[in-house]
Formats: sequence, C-alpha cells, structure tokens
Amino acid sequence: MTTKSKQRKLRLGAGLHGASGNFAAWRHSDAPADASIQFPYYKRQTLKAESGKFDFVFVADGLYINEKSIPHFLNRFEPITLLTALGAVTSNIGLVGTLSTSYSQPFTVARQFASLDHITGGRGGWNVVTSPLEGSALNYGKKLSEHPDHEKRYKIAAEYLQVTQGLWDSWEDDAFVRDKESGVFFDPEKLHTLNHEGEYFSVKGPLNIARSRQGQPIIFQAGSSDRGRNLAAASADGVFTDHKTLEIAQEFYRDVKRRAKEAGRDPDEVLIFPGILVIVGETEEEAVRKYEKVAELVSIDSALNYLGRFFEHHDFTQYPLDEPFPELGELGKNSFQSATDKLKREAKEQGLTLRQVALRTATPRSLFTGTAATIADTIQEWFEQEGADGFIVVGGEPNGLDDFVDKVVPILQERGLFRTEYESDTLRGNLGLPIPENRYTKRKKELVPAANPTE
Amino acid sequence: MTTKSKQRKLRLGAGLHGASGNFAAWRHSDAPADASIQFPYYKRQTLKAESGKFDFVFVADGLYINEKSIPHFLNRFEPITLLTALGAVTSNIGLVGTLSTSYSQPFTVARQFASLDHITGGRGGWNVVTSPLEGSALNYGKKLSEHPDHEKRYKIAAEYLQVTQGLWDSWEDDAFVRDKESGVFFDPEKLHTLNHEGEYFSVKGPLNIARSRQGQPIIFQAGSSDRGRNLAAASADGVFTDHKTLEIAQEFYRDVKRRAKEAGRDPDEVLIFPGILVIVGETEEEAVRKYEKVAELVSIDSALNYLGRFFEHHDFTQYPLDEPFPELGELGKNSFQSATDKLKREAKEQGLTLRQVALRTATPRSLFTGTAATIADTIQEWFEQEGADGFIVVGGEPNGLDDFVDKVVPILQERGLFRTEYESDTLRGNLGLPIPENRYTKRKKELVPAANPTE
Ligand SMILES: Cc1cc2nc3c(=O)[nH]c(=O)nc-3n(C[C@H](O)[C@H](O)[C@H](O)COP(=O)(O)O)c2cc1C
Ligand SMILES: Cc1cc2nc3c(=O)[nH]c(=O)nc-3n(C[C@H](O)[C@H](O)[C@H](O)COP(=O)(O)O)c2cc1C
Repeated sequence: MTTKSKQRKLRLGAGLHGASGNFAAWRHSDAPADASIQFPYYKRQTLKAESGKFDFVFVADGLYINEKSIPHFLNRFEPITLLTALGAVTSNIGLVGTLSTSYSQPFTVARQFASLDHITGGRGGWNVVTSPLEGSALNYGKKLSEHPDHEKRYKIAAEYLQVTQGLWDSWEDDAFVRDKESGVFFDPEKLHTLNHEGEYFSVKGPLNIARSRQGQPIIFQAGSSDRGRNLAAASADGVFTDHKTLEIAQEFYRDVKRRAKEAGRDPDEVLIFPGILVIVGETEEEAVRKYEKVAELVSIDSALNYLGRFFEHHDFTQYPLDEPFPELGELGKNSFQSATDKLKREAKEQGLTLRQVALRTATPRSLFTGTAATIADTIQEWFEQEGADGFIVVGGEPNGLDDFVDKVVPILQERGLFRTEYESDTLRGNLGLPIPENRYTKRKKELVPAANPTE
Repeated sequence: MTTKSKQRKLRLGAGLHGASGNFAAWRHSDAPADASIQFPYYKRQTLKAESGKFDFVFVADGLYINEKSIPHFLNRFEPITLLTALGAVTSNIGLVGTLSTSYSQPFTVARQFASLDHITGGRGGWNVVTSPLEGSALNYGKKLSEHPDHEKRYKIAAEYLQVTQGLWDSWEDDAFVRDKESGVFFDPEKLHTLNHEGEYFSVKGPLNIARSRQGQPIIFQAGSSDRGRNLAAASADGVFTDHKTLEIAQEFYRDVKRRAKEAGRDPDEVLIFPGILVIVGETEEEAVRKYEKVAELVSIDSALNYLGRFFEHHDFTQYPLDEPFPELGELGKNSFQSATDKLKREAKEQGLTLRQVALRTATPRSLFTGTAATIADTIQEWFEQEGADGFIVVGGEPNGLDDFVDKVVPILQERGLFRTEYESDTLRGNLGLPIPENRYTKRKKELVPAANPTE
C-alpha cells in the first residue's frame, strides 16, 4: 500500500444532522431550533459543502422513535426524499443516505437509489445499515422479539445487497437502442432478469430503470463490528466509522483493508471515513469555549437518556451517577454492538463513573476541536498515517461545518491535500472509484466464444 | 350542488409520461427518445405547467416490467424521488405521485410522502393504487398466485390509508415547543402513538416527522370500479378517471359525489379529474394531422401487446385481427377491472373487430383533439355540466402539454374559468380544500371537559 499511497487523495463528506452533531445544539443561540426539518437549512449547508468541494453530504436515519428519543430524531426528513431534493439544487456534490436492509424491500430500494442516481447525473450513494434499534420492528408489523438479531441482520444485509446490485445491472449500458425509424426501443439480448431466489429474498426483476452515469450508486457501510467489517470488505465502496485516537483508527483501517484484500478486492477501492466532530476557534481557547458552550446545553438527564439508546433504551437513572460505570453483561450486543463494546471497555480501562461516561458520550470533545491549523494538522496526520482515506465532517456546534469550509479547507488545499476543483460531476469520479462493469456484459466477454449468458 | 356550483373553480393537473401519453411517441421527430429517463425534460415540462398555473403535476407508476412492456415503462424514474426533485426547483405547483398499497410498507410510505410534503412546503400528493399487474408479486417475494385479488387489494388499501393518515397525525400542530431556555423540545401531551393493530397491518408509531403546512398530503385515487369508487368516496381528496364521453363522465361524477355524501363527506371536497389526451392544432385539420402522425407510429403488433397488458398480459396475436373482438370471459377482472369491463362492453355494443379495439386503445383519438378554442369549449362544457371538477392534461403527442399551456390556458383564463395567479403555495390551498384538523386535537376539543384522549 505504501508505494501507491503517493496517489492517495483526501476525501471529505459533510454529515448533515439538524443543527449539528451535538443533540442539544438546537438550544444554541446560533442554531435554528427546527433545523432538522428545515429544507432551506439543509440546502444552505449542502451548498456550503459544495463550495468547499466536498465529495458528498451524508444523511443518517432511524426507524423508531419514542418520547425519549433525541430531539432531531423526532422530526426529520426521510433521507431519499431529502437527498433527491438536494441533488436538484446542486451540480457536483455526492448525495449519500442511510437506509436499512432490515425493514425495506430491495426492489423498491434499488429503484429509489437508482432514480436518485439518475436524477443527479450519477451522484447517489447508499449507506447500508441494519437497524440497531429493535423498536423498529414495531413499526413494520413485527413484535420486538422478531427484530432480527445482529448475526441475522448482517446475513439479510449481505443477501439484500446482492439482490440490489443484481437489479441495478438489469440493463446493459448499450441496451437502449431507441431507433425511431425501425421502432426498436431496446435490444432484448441486453435485458437481464435477475430471478433471485435466496434465503431471505425472492425477486424476479428486471428493474425498470437503467444504470446511471456512474454505473451503480456508491455503497457505504456503517457497522464496525466483526460482521460489519466483513460486509464492508465484501461489498462496500466506503466505510463510515468513528474513532477516538489515531492508533485505534489505524488498527481499524489496516483490518478492513486486509479483509478487503482477502475478499479478493483492491483495498484502495474500499475507502475509510471516520466521522469527526469539528469545532474551530481563532485560538485553542476560543475553540474550547465554543465546546463548553454547547456541552453546557446537555443536561445529565438527557445524557443518560442518550447513553441508554445505545443499550436498547436501558434506563441508566437507576444507578448512582458518581460510582463506577455499572456492569451490563450482554446488554447492547444486539443493537449497537461495536459502540457498546467500546463504551464498556473504555469505562473499565479508564475507571470512569456513569456521569463521566454519559457526558463524554453525549458531548464528546473530539481531537478536532482547535484552530483551523491544528485541525488541518490532525487531518493530515490521520490521512498520511493511514488512519483514514477521508472524513465525514460533522459540526460539533452549529457553526462547525461552515467554519470548516471557510477556514480548514483552504489550508488543506494550500497543502495540496485536497482538491480546489471537482475532478468530475459523478460521485465515483470524485472519489476516484472505477465504474463497475455491468456483470452481464463482463460475463459475456469472459465467455469465449461468446455464448448466451446463463439467465 | 347547483347553488354551490357558482363557486366551483376549474383545476388542472399535468400528467407526465415520458414523451407524452402515446406510448409510441418516443419515435416522434419532436420527442427526445429517452424522455422517460431525462430529468431535464421532466423539469422543463413541470416548469411549463407551473407557468400555466396548473394545480399539480402527476406521475404514474408500475412495479413490474417484462420484455413486452411499453417503452416508457421500461426505464423511468421512481415517483417519490422524481417529485421531490421537481419540488426543489418549483415553488407553487403540486407534486402528485403514484404508489401502490399492495407492495409497500405504510411506515415508510407515510414518511416519504410527509417528507416530500415538508420539503415542498405543503405541495405533496399521493395517488393511491393497488397494483393491477399480478407480476408485481414476483418482485416482492411472492408467487403470482399470491397477488391479492381485486377485493382484497382494496381492503388492504383502505386499512393502509387509515394507518398512513393516523401516522401523519402523530404530532399535533403545536407539539414542538422548542424552548431553548428550558430545554423543552416538545409537549408530550401532543405526541400520539398510533398503536394500530388491524387485519393487514400492525404499526405502532409515532411517525418521526410533523405535519406539513397543508396538514397532510393530498390523497388521490385512480380505481374506477365499484370498490375503487367506494375507497375514493371514503378517503380521497381527488379521483383520477378516464371517460370517452360527457354522458359517461357525468354518470361517474354523480355516482362518486353521491357515495361521498353517503360516506358523510362534503361532496365538494372529493374532486373528480378525468385524464384527457390533448392535441392542439391551428385548425381542426392540423390537429387531426398531428393525431395521425403519432397514431402511425403504433404498429398493430405493439397495439395488441398494449391491449394485452390490461388483460393480465393476454396474448392477442392468437386471434384473427379483422373478426369480432374475442369472448374473454372473466379475464381482466382481477387486474384493470373497470378498464377491461369497459373495453368488452364497447366492443360488443359497437361491433368492433380486434384490430379496431387494439388501435383505439393504443392510439385513442380523444375529444380533446382540435383547435385551442374547441378544446377550451369542451373543457368548459364538461366542467359546467358536472362531468369534471378538473382535468389531468396529458399530451396526445410530444407538444401536447406545451401547446395546451400556451394556447388553451389563456382562453380558459379569459373566460374566467381558470386562475391567472396561484391563490396559495400549498396544494390544498390551490385546490380549495381545507386543511384537515389533527384527529387528536379534534378529539380533545370534542371531549367536554377536556380529558386525556384515549391513546
Ligand atoms: C459512523 C456510523 C454511522 C452510523 N449511522 C447509522 C444510521 O444512520 N442509522 C442506523 O440505523 N445505524 C447507523 N449506524 C449503526 C450501524 O449501521 C450498525 O447498525 C450498528 O453500528 C451496529 O452494527 P455494528 O455492531 O456492526 O457496529 C452507524 C454506525 C456508525 C459507526
Ligand atoms: C386515470 C387512471 C390512472 C391510473 N394510474 C395508475 C398508475 O399510475 N399505476 C397503477 O398501478 N395503476 C394505475 N391505475 C389503475 C388503478 O389504480 C386500478 O388499480 C385499476 O384501475 C384497477 O382498479 P379498478 O378496477 O378499481 O379500476 C390508474 C387507473 C386510472 C383510471
């Protein structure tokens, strides 16, 4: 990897989460309190990110709320609709959204992402998640106990992706002849019916939409557990993750690249994106003051509540706040496995109290709090030391993303780390990823002499 | 109705179907052959309709194709994505799309339409259909034989609508307090969990999105059978339909309004929209020549194929072309029931041959082929004689919609039949329909003294 690393280019995505990544930021004097449901706000943020030549914006999602959910989850846009609308008012930036494979139908999802991808001229991306919140089951005709467990969720996701990617190849790139004279609209040899019959899905196809300018939408994956890493290694173009230190990031980076190689893929084509919470100050002190201003908006009750969500909505108010973090056994294994494993481990290693764990989780002060120059330094270090191929930038307070674009991006550009102009108007083009060849076209080429593909 | 009819206002929607309503129009010299998958084309048509002060654009949909499907169904946008993108580049026109209740999940669909509705500031609408094509089953994990029959499809649709409309009311209009000082984001008394447990669906809720500026998205319904009419009368704001003569349109109109009244609704709040295929000429002769130009693009083979689709993909090539239309028994009853009943009846009454039925079906020459003045006359007549509250205008050839906006709309405006400026920037506002009160707010008001609503 080292010989190739000279050609590596830094990639940036912007995470759009209402008024910022801090769940209490709606209370901040600089934030519109209704940011999570204000289209003009999302549009402004996206245009800002596009002005900073970001590769993409990213939208998270969830399928279950209750009265304890955090504010910007209670009232927010559905990702596919939001992204398509943002795509119609931008021209280069990619549009990546989260959609769960546990509670949806591949034919519909394949169509919607393909349609997003077409409407935006090849800028669509899908963050494949499996729905950690078991409550999601209740909104989809199932009992809590029928929420598939962690292992099954990933099995479903793997098959789901096969189906979706198969459907996306229904039409070879030159299938549509559209000869007005003869009336021949398409070449039936270049239409392929998937006929998928698997463990979890049976989908005939073909899909009623062609491939886009980038071939297929980009696949992102956001699970960091062992199973999540395998799915990413096998099928994803990008991986979203979350790390506190460079060492941990490097370990993850090496591990996923290794798995990709073992899965027979080019590890340079699986890009790793840690999410970073950014707060920029003119001085370090100002950055810390900005951090404190937003941290103070988080009450201990809301922090306990936020922590509880990762552990299947566990009620943490039952424990004393200033004693060691409680022993939780297997709790959390079936929802946010990688995140809860990490929380438990850190609490033990560092001897943290419940209050400390709750506040750190709710208002993390990241390494990316500082001046524009120190933030650029850290980004450069993580990138060059192979802790990341790029980052999802999330504001740590309401002005975080704007400040990043105005102050950090120019430094990264000066240092030759980041583009000053878009290389392409497709997401694959900007990410430097190849257009995947249509599987049927490829198969035909591989068959010598060319025979009919098995269909 | 007669006393009120002075206040009736003509409504117009534009049906977007690729290069026009004629399935061979892609071959026309004036059409982009790839219109059905060209976003700039849809955008141009929508902006044109908005310049003509249309109430809405309308997008049809289908969930199954095979190599015999008509060209613009093979490769087209998915409606929700297309409409949201169109919403982001327009400001007043409504955005109405088709989505099937037989192969989708109400929680997701409620979210997506609510999100479309929010992003567009209250301009969303849903055309509720039940998927007449049984092949749809194969793309959704089911066998052909598991495609629900006509009766069951409508039962599912009725319950589906209850769930969706219930979810849309999850939050009362003043539920979001968003008090930065106290940190109170919402009033828990104004959050309502649906807890629906029905025959076909069990959905807990609440929905993670508030009501929009128009309260809820508009509901359209497009089935014209007895069951379709009942669903419309019970739950729809608008009905799409299709009639060859004013007498038939009036009969339908009276019947649906009567059913609406019987269902306890104000019949003026169920608007009837026949679809009309428009071809405008400077003279009648020019209009007919335009019709003939597009009609000639349809081969008899493709016409038989098109006809077959209505009858569960029946193969009509097995019959002699110039003998009486064949006896088909119950065929078609389970898919496009109202359309196939009509075709059979007309063939018998008028003694038509198979060739005649196929060509008439594939290339109907509608009453709305003519000069701008005669088309305006017919529209006025249908409207004033209560055959319609408005129309879905579909081009009968590639320039049909543009010509309608440029030439027919000004006449309708001069006659005081159609608006010259939008009354509102929501779809309900323009259609003159009231904002439905949130069911929980209403229930609270009805309880005297105000107690907690049963939840
Ligand atoms: C950076 C990051 C972003 C994520 N975004 C989402 C999301 O938007 N929606 C969601 O349901 N899950 C999201 N997840 C959760 C994962 O998709 C996954 O379901 C969860 O982490 C459990 O899987 P794991 O144990 O493999 O990590 C995210 C996880 C990470 C690390
Ligand atoms: C004007 C009109 C438009 C329709 N649009 C669609 C459509 O876009 N997608 C669809 O699946 N069915 C569509 N349909 C079919 C109906 O939704 C319905 O399923 C079919 O007509 C059978 O029901 P019926 O027997 O009640 O008419 C349409 C029907 C009419 C009359």
